[in-house]
Amino acid sequence: MIKISFLGGLGDFGKNMTVIEHGGALLVVDCGSMFPEADIPGIDLIIPDFSYVLDNADRLAGLVLTHGHEDHIGAAPFLLKRLPMPVFASRLTMGLLNRKLSEMGVEPTSRTILEPGRQVGAGPFTVEGIPVTHSIPDAMSLAIGTPEGTLLHTGDFKLDQTPLDHRLTHYDRLQELGRQGILAMLIDSTNVEIEGMVGSEIRVRDTLDRYISAQDTNKLIITLFSTNLMRIQAIYDLAAKYQKKVALFGRSLVQNTRVGEEVGYLHIPGGVSIAADEVSSYSPEDVIILVAGSQGEPQAAMTRVAFDECKNFGVEEGDHLILSARIIPGNEKRVARVINQVYRKGGEVVTARDDRVHVSGHGAQEEIKMMASWIRPKYYIPVHGELRQLKGNATLAKQMGYDDAHILVSDLGESLTFERGEFASRGEVPTGSWLIDGDDTDPVDRLVVRDRRHLSNDGVVVPIVVISRQEGRMESEPEIISRGYPTLEGATDTVDEVKSDLVAMVRSLSVQEIRDSSILKAKVKSTVKRTLKRNEARIPLIIPVVMEI
Amino acid sequence: MIKISFLGGLGDFGKNMTVIEHGGALLVVDCGSMFPEADIPGIDLIIPDFSYVLDNADRLAGLVLTHGHEDHIGAAPFLLKRLPMPVFASRLTMGLLNRKLSEMGVEPTSRTILEPGRQVGAGPFTVEGIPVTHSIPDAMSLAIGTPEGTLLHTGDFKLDQTPLDHRLTHYDRLQELGRQGILAMLIDSTNVEIEGMVGSEIRVRDTLDRYISAQDTNKLIITLFSTNLMRIQAIYDLAAKYQKKVALFGRSLVQNTRVGEEVGYLHIPGGVSIAADEVSSYSPEDVIILVAGSQGEPQAAMTRVAFDECKNFGVEEGDHLILSARIIPGNEKRVARVINQVYRKGGEVVTARDDRVHVSGHGAQEEIKMMASWIRPKYYIPVHGELRQLKGNATLAKQMGYDDAHILVSDLGESLTFERGEFASRGEVPTGSWLIDGDDTDPVDRLVVRDRRHLSNDGVVVPIVVISRQEGRMESEPEIISRGYPTLEGATDTVDEVKSDLVAMVRSLSVQEIRDSSILKAKVKSTVKRTLKRNEARIPLIIPVVMEI
Repeated sequence: MIKISFLGGLGDFGKNMTVIEHGGALLVVDCGSMFPEADIPGIDLIIPDFSYVLDNADRLAGLVLTHGHEDHIGAAPFLLKRLPMPVFASRLTMGLLNRKLSEMGVEPTSRTILEPGRQVGAGPFTVEGIPVTHSIPDAMSLAIGTPEGTLLHTGDFKLDQTPLDHRLTHYDRLQELGRQGILAMLIDSTNVEIEGMVGSEIRVRDTLDRYISAQDTNKLIITLFSTNLMRIQAIYDLAAKYQKKVALFGRSLVQNTRVGEEVGYLHIPGGVSIAADEVSSYSPEDVIILVAGSQGEPQAAMTRVAFDECKNFGVEEGDHLILSARIIPGNEKRVARVINQVYRKGGEVVTARDDRVHVSGHGAQEEIKMMASWIRPKYYIPVHGELRQLKGNATLAKQMGYDDAHILVSDLGESLTFERGEFASRGEVPTGSWLIDGDDTDPVDRLVVRDRRHLSNDGVVVPIVVISRQEGRMESEPEIISRGYPTLEGATDTVDEVKSDLVAMVRSLSVQEIRDSSILKAKVKSTVKRTLKRNEARIPLIIPVVMEI
Repeated sequence: MIKISFLGGLGDFGKNMTVIEHGGALLVVDCGSMFPEADIPGIDLIIPDFSYVLDNADRLAGLVLTHGHEDHIGAAPFLLKRLPMPVFASRLTMGLLNRKLSEMGVEPTSRTILEPGRQVGAGPFTVEGIPVTHSIPDAMSLAIGTPEGTLLHTGDFKLDQTPLDHRLTHYDRLQELGRQGILAMLIDSTNVEIEGMVGSEIRVRDTLDRYISAQDTNKLIITLFSTNLMRIQAIYDLAAKYQKKVALFGRSLVQNTRVGEEVGYLHIPGGVSIAADEVSSYSPEDVIILVAGSQGEPQAAMTRVAFDECKNFGVEEGDHLILSARIIPGNEKRVARVINQVYRKGGEVVTARDDRVHVSGHGAQEEIKMMASWIRPKYYIPVHGELRQLKGNATLAKQMGYDDAHILVSDLGESLTFERGEFASRGEVPTGSWLIDGDDTDPVDRLVVRDRRHLSNDGVVVPIVVISRQEGRMESEPEIISRGYPTLEGATDTVDEVKSDLVAMVRSLSVQEIRDSSILKAKVKSTVKRTLKRNEARIPLIIPVVMEI
């Protein structure tokens, strides 16, 4: 019997996680995170509820990662911290994971680099990575062998004939696997609503070439996903071509480029790289600044640059900001706020609506169908999408001749069971979301909470700051509401300390910062956290409330 | 001297409000609201900070409304409640305003219907409404005469040659006004990024005709803005043509269609209309249901239908949901959640991405330029947009030959002063956002708060409910955090009452409802409010917190 269980990535975009079982052993494919919507107070990250894996801790064959994006590896440190197990991944993916693990002080039991064309064993499974093109280098599809048949998980893929790293999809191997026979294929549905092919990354490089060559009086600020190392490489190469300098701003960018260099996926030309604090010693037209935070996150690099919170440089008249990234649904308002601010300062903004400054890493309809025609699996399982995309992908399968019995549209928390090479039944597995607060490595989860009778024991602190938007200042003393957090219960000294730290923090802000409730909320939270840390190791859930009057 | 002050609608979409001053008198143009982002706890509506108007209460000439959309009239009852003043609007706009006023128990001093071609006096101003096409009937541009020159405010407009109500834009009058000379034009910038013309509403009707004529086994559920009376009329007419029935679901839809009928802008054919509770007595293929809540608001009609919270009908296998509305940025996630749910239940969803089921009410580049070439104002003032759109509109003006000195890009809280027919200076006026909590008619604003030393006096209650997502039930007793609200301070009886009402409310919910934190949050808030109302007239700010574990 083979059982495939979906703990994330279906029914919603983000936190991809699939469990494959055979003969009593579990193989986990991907373990990603997602960012919460703005309205979950005090929560910074969402990871899959992987209690199903914890409950089967004695039967783990390992964790295989398809590529290094957050929605595929972001929750892996949380899983590996609880349950050390062998990890299988390509070189760059492993490098990005290692960075996360060392930040959180987690050590996996063994790490195996997946090399193209080589099968490795993982319990009763064999695992082979097949290189595919995507928006991060070293992405792979996975062929997962079991005694009852082979599964193919496409991972995230597109079919780019001119990828900037010149590493093409291994078409021959995919077709060979298809000829050998695939029981079931799990296939990326993200861009199923786009006709044709999604387009090559080279078109973005050509657009950026145009902007960099035309840059003659202004700074060029480019924001992109910090995992997009091919595009980052291209920008360094273009900078060298036009004798410009490149500075990085944002922790994830600095760290990911370092990993990229270490594992040999990024080659920074000599004399191009400068530090963020050197920007002001060059003429604006000689500097390209790459900034993280393309989704307009309040505390991230792009927002800080736009709102003059970066001490080294800001947006000045005539500067260009290029948004070389997709705006993830839900983030439109935050990004629009940044764009608005750049215009307010006399800058220009170029988005994917204006010019070809971004292209998706996920294949469109023709790419999905081409993959399917090579693999020709017995069962077609759309993954990586909301129900709309999964059903859209099922429609493509029907066009290709699959009947309803061989297309398995599934959902979060569902499992599909196969027996003797045939689909047998659907089932349910426990799943959902676990919420991560701040820098904690332990989720605010049911295992932690299980022994607690009451939220009051959890410890919650609600700092409330009242702001006069018009006058750009605090209207009254901050209020601290707390419950079940002994440090603050009755300890008026600490409460006063928190309050006076908040007052000092708000005094240090500009009127503009005070007026921006999302920035202010983040700062209220970090200030309270810092003050509490001085007094106690345990930090409660902090729910900052900013009221504008 | 003429002074134009922007209290809303520039630098952000929504809550449009402009003040025009001459000779010591103030004329207010539009007074709109906007919906808060999801992350402002306890706040249901945002209105402009109109303290500038309140501070000049003795010099008010009146309030003129361009059309009946929420972002133009939604804050008017709040203003008129504080400051009775004459109101000028077209027939339908006045009808929609009257409904709002009577709901809030507010009475304006005098109401004047603007008739095309007729100037009316308002203090030292003359006001004339010029019919323009938009996505609501009876929209108008305004010619505002002053002794120092005439201003033209386009309002929201497009140039639709085949509007469903056959009321064309009064081209001749606009051109006549242009020939007579316009000092400054305030012009809609919303769709400045779209080339060509935005397209006629008739294309949407033709698409809906296709879906309604093809409807043969399923219910057809159409969601749209409840002010879009022309499209609503078209659907009733199509229903009559194909012998279908139409039911309405959602308070705003029911009320706005009633206003539409009363003022003669909606003519419902006989025998077509049925009540929501009659839907189940007809075959699904004979029923079209119009639902409000196109933005996926948690408590609104569309969401309730998708999540089986409407007692009369739900989404069944094969049903179609047509999203005949624009998704306002910031609402993508909520709408996606509803779409996902419809697919989960076996329905189909048609959005503007799939088919021509929506067209914007705002003109694109060619329409903006055409309006400008008729009016040919001395000063060109882009309004109704974020900075990006305002600057984009300025670029169009440059293409038409305006120099920088005659294009006045302004921003929220700015004023522009003209003397002797020339632009003189920029200034600032106090502005910002006032926040409205629930059904209160008084904003949570600085005037109310002015006498309060402290937030604690404001009264705030934070009900916290901890939910086990996996088990779909409450994990522990609810916690009630309160501050400055005497009813709960030390009164354990009332606290216990609130808690037991919350427990009972959660018990009455389905697992699905409990898992949906946005629905649950709204229910927690309304439950607490109801319980408190039993004990005291004063209701505090309620900040519901739902924690999922």
